Order: sequence, then structure tokens, then C-alpha cells
Amino acid sequence: MKTVLIFEPLDFSAKVIATLTEHGFEVSLNKDNISIREALEKYSLIYMRLGVKIDAKLLDECNSIKCRFILIPATGIDHVDEQACYKHQIQIISFKNKKELLKDIRATAELTMALTLTLLRNIIPAIESTKSGIWNRDLFRGRDIFGKKVGIIGYGRLGSIVSNYFHTFGAIVQVYEKNAVELPSHFERASSINDIFLNNEIITLHVDYQESNIQLINSSNLMLATKQPVFINTSRGQLVNEADLLVALENKVIGGAAIDVVNEELGFNPKNPLVAYANHHSNLIITPHIGGCTIDSSHKTEEIITNELLDLIKNEV
Amino acid sequence: MKTVLIFEPLDFSAKVIATLTEHGFEVSLNKDNISIREALEKYSLIYMRLGVKIDAKLLDECNSIKCRFILIPATGIDHVDEQACYKHQIQIISFKNKKELLKDIRATAELTMALTLTLLRNIIPAIESTKSGIWNRDLFRGRDIFGKKVGIIGYGRLGSIVSNYFHTFGAIVQVYEKNAVELPSHFERASSINDIFLNNEIITLHVDYQESNIQLINSSNLMLATKQPVFINTSRGQLVNEADLLVALENKVIGGAAIDVVNEELGFNPKNPLVAYANHHSNLIITPHIGGCTIDSSHKTEEIITNELLDLIKNEV
Repeated sequence: MKTVLIFEPLDFSAKVIATLTEHGFEVSLNKDNISIREALEKYSLIYMRLGVKIDAKLLDECNSIKCRFILIPATGIDHVDEQACYKHQIQIISFKNKKELLKDIRATAELTMALTLTLLRNIIPAIESTKSGIWNRDLFRGRDIFGKKVGIIGYGRLGSIVSNYFHTFGAIVQVYEKNAVELPSHFERASSINDIFLNNEIITLHVDYQESNIQLINSSNLMLATKQPVFINTSRGQLVNEADLLVALENKVIGGAAIDVVNEELGFNPKNPLVAYANHHSNLIITPHIGGCTIDSSHKTEEIITNELLDLIKNEV
Repeated sequence: MKTVLIFEPLDFSAKVIATLTEHGFEVSLNKDNISIREALEKYSLIYMRLGVKIDAKLLDECNSIKCRFILIPATGIDHVDEQACYKHQIQIISFKNKKELLKDIRATAELTMALTLTLLRNIIPAIESTKSGIWNRDLFRGRDIFGKKVGIIGYGRLGSIVSNYFHTFGAIVQVYEKNAVELPSHFERASSINDIFLNNEIITLHVDYQESNIQLINSSNLMLATKQPVFINTSRGQLVNEADLLVALENKVIGGAAIDVVNEELGFNPKNPLVAYANHHSNLIITPHIGGCTIDSSHKTEEIITNELLDLIKNEV
């Protein structure tokens, strides 16, 4: 009997649990909140999300490792040391390099629009004002997406979906993509990230987390902005130099920002200067990496990754 | 010399002021915040928004009325008694029955998406949590628009734009429209408002303010909901029975609501029970009628209505 632990069981797909049980797995939910080390020692399969790190040191410290598969329904798995896992005969199943499976997963793309609109329409202070008993629309005059110049950095799975949303809203979309990818004729191609910052009023980042992209957004491009753009990051915190973003906001070169990610999320620092700024300025909003975090999208990714597992095991038999 | 008062001058279009001046008007901004009565007595043209009422009693009380034109860049002008104005030889220029002029005015349609996404993604509590120094995505698991059944009540200017947004987001759109209007084939037609509440997970209201629509949404349709839908109202507060909406929220028949309008906006009651509920429940959000209230859309409507005025005057000469 193969034992499965759902390490972070909140709202986990009931359909997947039923499927696994049908296939002869014994599924446990981590109700006692055991550590990832204990999980690796006791279960042959582990489903995990983004909540804990697995590195070489942790794996070396385990008494004995029973785990053979770790399933992570995410594209970015930098919280798990893949090399170290392979050394310990653990196979990782994730969506890294398998984005074609995710065409119906829209949670992060939708959050990009949510954050853009929340910022442009001053939704947060408007709601606060009404809650306090004041009814005054003039305090919250916002901006439209319609007719705005929107710069999209990265035209992969998410960049292309988001570009399409902005196009439907009537924005003029400009795309920067370093790879040779064909663009629909209604999108303009930018020659560089600098170009994106020079020309646009809304700028949104959709690139992968990889070594060469770390701090891709920094003062060298941020400070080129001419139209006080709003900047949206629903990708990864490490792609942006946070100190530079703060300076750009303080100097009003960047008109506003909405970020769903920060540099350090595991071991989050409540004194992060961006958090301090957000506490006193309504033009910076920060959400706690809720991009992929909808019940609908989570269930779908859990189902898809389970199918990947079952296919793999079937082939091995 | 014709005298013009911009009664509510905040962020008023500089382009319009220049145009009026070129055409020989003497334009004043209401910097001293004079009353609407004094404005009617002193100026031949008045630009106004939604901030004050003009009724028969007010007009009868004026010493003498100099005003000949009131320009209101809005479609809903129920705050102004048109009959009483005509009796006093005042001509109203607004967008009532002239919606074809507003195809590029998207502020209210965009706010509809902003409110839907804010509610579905728990944006308000997520931002509050991060501001307080906590980083925990699991507290704010939301829902996607993609794949959801969305019911649109009213397929006029705004309903059709909003339907198109939801379609692009991958929702399954069902429309109720009492008038004989052709729908694109990818939208399903609902036979009644009841039908909309029975079938959908997101429901949004886009009908005109008119006598026959008052309290159109009430317990007789709200209580038919089977899928705990979220309900969005960016139209007019009078279209909804607020007490019934509150009961539907309290009984969890309606899963959440986002409203940009309430019954009484002039003379807003801070003790409105919906406001009290919103102060203790994150599934109701209320904004202070900021639907049309973007700088971009306001400037465009001010420009269009000024062109209407200039055309009218030209024909009269």
C-alpha cells in the first residue's frame, strides 16, 4: 500500500482524494501538522504547495527517507532543491516546463487585473471611507484602463492571457518578450524592457523565476518611466529590486504599484520597507502571493498533477 | 457675454474650459462654493454632476433665474426635475437617451470588473493582513471568473460591454434583456430575472433608473439563488430593495455583494444597515458611486457634452 500525505490540506480537492483512494493509495491529511522532515521519513508520496522549503541540509538530516514522489502543483518550485531530491531518489512532479497543461488555470492572470483595477480605481480607500459613514465620490477619482498604454514584460502563458484581457478592455498593448515568439498583429513589440518603461502607463511583469531574471526590474529601467506608470508584479519577488522600487515610488517616477510577491516570503519580514510604505501610502498595495490561490484553480492543478502521477506510475509498471 | 459656472470644478477638463473661452464664454469655477440657487440666479450656463438636487421648490424660490442651460455629463439625471426646469425655460443637456455618444466611456463597466474581482479574491482582507505584517495566502483562497456562470441583467450600453469582459475571462454568460435585442451567439438568453438568479454564480445589474425598475431586485428573485452567487450593482441603488438584499446576505442565499450605489446617496445615512453589515463582514463591499468617476471618462463626457451645447447654439443662431 502506497501512503500519501497531503502536507497542506486546506481546501484540497476531494475529487483527487477519491481518485487516489480508488487507485489503492492510502491518503492522509496533515491534520497534526507534522514537519516536512517527518513527512519525508514516513510517506511514500507527498503533495505540497509553497509553504515550506526542502533543501540538501534537511534531506541529509533525515533518518531514512521513505518518500519517492513529491507533487507540487505549481510552475515555480525554487523552494525545493531538485538536485538534492534526485540524489535521495525522490522524483519531483510539478508544472515546471509543462505549462501547456495549464491553459485553463487563470487565477494569476485574473489577479493581475484585480490588482490593476484596485489600484487605478482607489478601491481600498473608497471602501474604507464608505465603511466609516462618508459618501464622497470626489475623493476617489480614478483612471480607466481603456485607451491606456499597457506594457507587458514576458509573453508566456500568463503574459499572453493578460495581454488579451487588456486588449479587450481597450488598452493599447505593447509586449516585450526576449524569446522569438510571434505576437498577434494588434500588439506592438517593444525592443527592450527599457522601452516598456519609457512608453507605458500600466506595466505588468510575467517572466519566469530563473537565475538570469533575478532583479531584472531595478533602477536602470524603473527610473526611465516618463508617464508615472503603475507597476504590477504577480510573478516572483526576486525579479524586482525592492529598494529600487521603493525609491521610484518615493520619487513619484512610478505612480503606483501592486505586488503579490516579495523577495522573502518564507521567513517574511513584517518590517520589509515596502510594507512600511504601504501602511502610509494608498498607491502601493501588497497581497500575500494569492495569485494561484483560488479554490477553482487549486483543484484543477491538483487534478492535473495527479493525472501526471498516475500516467507515470502506469508506465513504470 | 455668456457666463458659465462649473458648479463642481474638481478635475474638470482644462480642454473644455479652453474651448468655451475660445467660443466667447466667460468661465468661472465654483471656488467659493456658492449654492445651486445662487448659481441659477447668476449664471446663464451651469455644468453640474450628481452632487446636488434641483427640484420645483428650489426653482420657485429663486428671485430670478438667469440660467438657460444646465449641462450634466451623465445618463441618470433623476436628481434634477426636468419638467420644473422646462417650466422655468431652462434646457437640460445630458446623456439621457443619448447613449450612442458614450461608446468610449468605460469607467462604470471597468468598475464592475474591479468590484467582482475584489470580492472573489478577498483583496481587501488580503491587503489588510499584509499591512499588519502577516504573510499567509491560505487565509484568502478565492474563486476564479473563468468557467463561472455569469448572469447579466440588462443588455444595454454597459451590460453589453460587461458581458464581453466576462466572455474574455472565460465565463459562461447568460443575459436577461426585456427588450428585443439580438445577442451574440456565445451568450445564452435568460427568460426572466428569476432565471438569472436560479442559474448563476456571479450576477450583475445593468438596467436604467426608471419608475418601472424601482426595487426590481428584491426577495422574490434574490431568494431563488441556488449557487450562493455574488451580486454586483453599479447601476442605481433604487433598483434594489436593500432590506431584502441584507436578508439574503445574512441567510447566505447570496454569497457576497459589491455595490457602488445605495438608495439614498444625497443625504447618505451612515447608519444604513448595509454599511453596518459591511463593517463586520468581508462579503459585502460598498463604494461611493465611483462608477463613472475616473478622470479619463469625466473629461471625455465633459468634452462630448460641450460639443452638444456648441452644436445646439450654432443651430439656434
